[in-house]
Amino acid sequence: MKKYNESMIIDFYELTMANGYFQEGMQDQIVYFDLYFRKVPDGGGYAIYAGLETIIKYIEDIKFTESDIEYLKSKNTFSDEFLEYLKNFKFQGDIYSFKEGSIMFPNEPIITVKANLIEAQIIETFLLQTVNHQSLIATKASRMKYAAKGKTILEMGARRAHGISSSVLGARAAYIGGVDGTSNVAADQIHSVPAGGTMAHSWVQLFDTELEAFEAYARNYPNSSTFLVDTYDTLKSGVPNAIKAIKNILVPKKVDSFAIRIDSGDLTYLSKQARKMLDEAGLNNCKIVVSNSLDERIISTLLSQGAPIDLFGVGERLITSKSDPVFGSVYKLVALEQDNKIIPKIKISDNIEKITTPHFKKVYRIYSETNKAEADLITIYNEKIDFEKPLTIFDQNDTWKQKTYDDYSIREMLIPIFLKGKKVYDSPSISEIREFAKAELESLWDEVKRFDFPHKYYVDLSKILWETKQKLINKR
Amino acid sequence: MKKYNESMIIDFYELTMANGYFQEGMQDQIVYFDLYFRKVPDGGGYAIYAGLETIIKYIEDIKFTESDIEYLKSKNTFSDEFLEYLKNFKFQGDIYSFKEGSIMFPNEPIITVKANLIEAQIIETFLLQTVNHQSLIATKASRMKYAAKGKTILEMGARRAHGISSSVLGARAAYIGGVDGTSNVAADQIHSVPAGGTMAHSWVQLFDTELEAFEAYARNYPNSSTFLVDTYDTLKSGVPNAIKAIKNILVPKKVDSFAIRIDSGDLTYLSKQARKMLDEAGLNNCKIVVSNSLDERIISTLLSQGAPIDLFGVGERLITSKSDPVFGSVYKLVALEQDNKIIPKIKISDNIEKITTPHFKKVYRIYSETNKAEADLITIYNEKIDFEKPLTIFDQNDTWKQKTYDDYSIREMLIPIFLKGKKVYDSPSISEIREFAKAELESLWDEVKRFDFPHKYYVDLSKILWETKQKLINKR
Repeated sequence: MKKYNESMIIDFYELTMANGYFQEGMQDQIVYFDLYFRKVPDGGGYAIYAGLETIIKYIEDIKFTESDIEYLKSKNTFSDEFLEYLKNFKFQGDIYSFKEGSIMFPNEPIITVKANLIEAQIIETFLLQTVNHQSLIATKASRMKYAAKGKTILEMGARRAHGISSSVLGARAAYIGGVDGTSNVAADQIHSVPAGGTMAHSWVQLFDTELEAFEAYARNYPNSSTFLVDTYDTLKSGVPNAIKAIKNILVPKKVDSFAIRIDSGDLTYLSKQARKMLDEAGLNNCKIVVSNSLDERIISTLLSQGAPIDLFGVGERLITSKSDPVFGSVYKLVALEQDNKIIPKIKISDNIEKITTPHFKKVYRIYSETNKAEADLITIYNEKIDFEKPLTIFDQNDTWKQKTYDDYSIREMLIPIFLKGKKVYDSPSISEIREFAKAELESLWDEVKRFDFPHKYYVDLSKILWETKQKLINKR
Repeated sequence: MKKYNESMIIDFYELTMANGYFQEGMQDQIVYFDLYFRKVPDGGGYAIYAGLETIIKYIEDIKFTESDIEYLKSKNTFSDEFLEYLKNFKFQGDIYSFKEGSIMFPNEPIITVKANLIEAQIIETFLLQTVNHQSLIATKASRMKYAAKGKTILEMGARRAHGISSSVLGARAAYIGGVDGTSNVAADQIHSVPAGGTMAHSWVQLFDTELEAFEAYARNYPNSSTFLVDTYDTLKSGVPNAIKAIKNILVPKKVDSFAIRIDSGDLTYLSKQARKMLDEAGLNNCKIVVSNSLDERIISTLLSQGAPIDLFGVGERLITSKSDPVFGSVYKLVALEQDNKIIPKIKISDNIEKITTPHFKKVYRIYSETNKAEADLITIYNEKIDFEKPLTIFDQNDTWKQKTYDDYSIREMLIPIFLKGKKVYDSPSISEIREFAKAELESLWDEVKRFDFPHKYYVDLSKILWETKQKLINKR
């Protein structure tokens, strides 16, 4: 199968613009682009940032091969000089980013790129695609884990994913977001997301009886048996046969870790009945796994109805973020350099929420004395703010709404990843990223994590930045 | 960046089952699996099958490398003999499939795999993922094209896609489904989906004035200028400047093909006003392109309100199939061989729609004398049916509902792609697949293509197959 060159994951217009800038002699123009999003999927109160590791590898590896150049030449659109330039293309700018696993909110820069025009434009599509996809799935996973109240969740959506990267990087993102493992072998092999799995209905069908199928599995995998009990009839046949297999094969071996899985029917009713049957058989230690189009809403309902479920297998509704499959990050010009000065730029729009916040910026997160995240403050990059003093922030629209913090600490969110094209940051391991995301979630008030009408976390501009923005709006 | 070995896109349980079969001495058992789906996304009346070419390449290339084997060994789950077997793994079975681009309906086999148990199980995840993803997008694209009533549609969703394969193979699937081109450079380079694109807002912002930005673009790309007119103010600034640029640069060069693009605001109102302004300037030939979270419903509404739009750019709502991002194909055991006989198998379920149709089967499509597709008939593989005679079919649930065709023709839908592991089918070019899909859509009654309450196309079982299924249900 042909392997994709990630460097060619580009919207065609990035190249027509890049070639145009080149032809106009603008290729050395230094520009600043912000990557940010406007809306949390599912009407949620926060999102989890994922994809930075993928972006770092992409930036390091970006390269147009001879055959890429040949292909571009065949489009009869690009000048020879530009194609020559692309042959030796390397990203030589700066990239600042939130740490992977960070909690993030609408309308704050998650990534800022400072580079020449052509570099900045060429990396746009890949950056957006990566952040959008992986943050979407990490965020969805965190919602499901929140609903599961500490119970285990396994991602098993590979078969409904939108292609290979959707399944593998989706599994990685889900793990960062809090899910505990995956069914996806490649995600384990390449991204160290722990993979596992036991049996499908076909296993049960391939033996003469359900009991034989269960016993054969128990013989082969005594330490990791999960019996799928709904091939014929969950309560009349599946659960009783699972109990027999456990007693015949596993109990004599002193194995005490096993489970049944229910994949259809009413999961509350069936899990309660199954629990009763297992307990009556003395198998209080047998865990109950359920699957079948689960998401955070269904998990919540099952648990609130007292379904005695130990582990949730989630598929299509996680790996596609079914209820809201679009994460809408955008990538907008916010400043350019002229005579060694940074000139802020704005994009006005008929849709007011599409107006950008101009300038090269910094983002500070404000923490309460109990280490809860209270608000994010966006400033111009070189603003001096005395964080030893009380800090007053105000609402961007209703500017009379103010809030003052006396006892607080701050964290700077955008950290340098590349400077002049050189990587200055080491990606943490996936477990570290996952732990970091967990700590991030713990820093959030429950009010922000609620599914319905979550509290809107404050993301405010400094006074100077707010005034700069108003000036540019009014100038048009 | 690490390249994925597609052969490792496997749900872990396929491997635990395969290893289990191997340990149980069942590895030579020949089985039949059907791939089919139960529900058309978006409540639609039909789906378009896409992904076969990807599957063919996967089957030809499937191979476990030394490092794959090493990784699997590290899981301490699989026997040495099984891993040795995997080292030399090659798919040696038969695969029958609908032709790519075919119209397909719920509950009929789209792919049938005949192979030994291990082969059949190992390819499951990749087959499902590929069919589910590409058919989802091809089907969605066909709905958008249907809504657009013959107007041009370009796919430009790469930035909102779920990773690389989602964007590239999604663009390919969208093209098969009827969309006319893509913004995705890699999709053009690798899959020959025509790519194009012009400018983003950043281009406009980077020049001192909007007019300069438009004129620079027109100078560089006189034969493919599309001016993005909503950076500052669509009607007050964007459209007047586009008119000036066209008159200053393009008209003197006798260019008569150009367009404006509106990416925000009320597209009906703005396109009508822009059309008026363009016409008054004598630019009746200037096309109007719109974009901004479009889908088949919005396209329908825009056209029904008389918006004078020539071309639709569609992004996130196509590449993720936002309103219904899951295509639910499943892969189920339907028969196995014993003593050279084919034994039908069934899976009962507490959810009635999850009961499988057993046996190795054939699918015939019945066409009326006017070449409209009327119904699909599923038979046992070796049933003799005299298609010279009138043909009576009956409803699977309400068996008294019968229909007889006197003047009809038939097409056999499942054709051999691999026999004994050898490819016996040549993939058509993507244009041929696209043309075929177009013809397939033309063979469908409009009633089936309707978005709301579409006519339910008949998919019926032959009498013998129906009886076989009932017998197996009642046996349990």
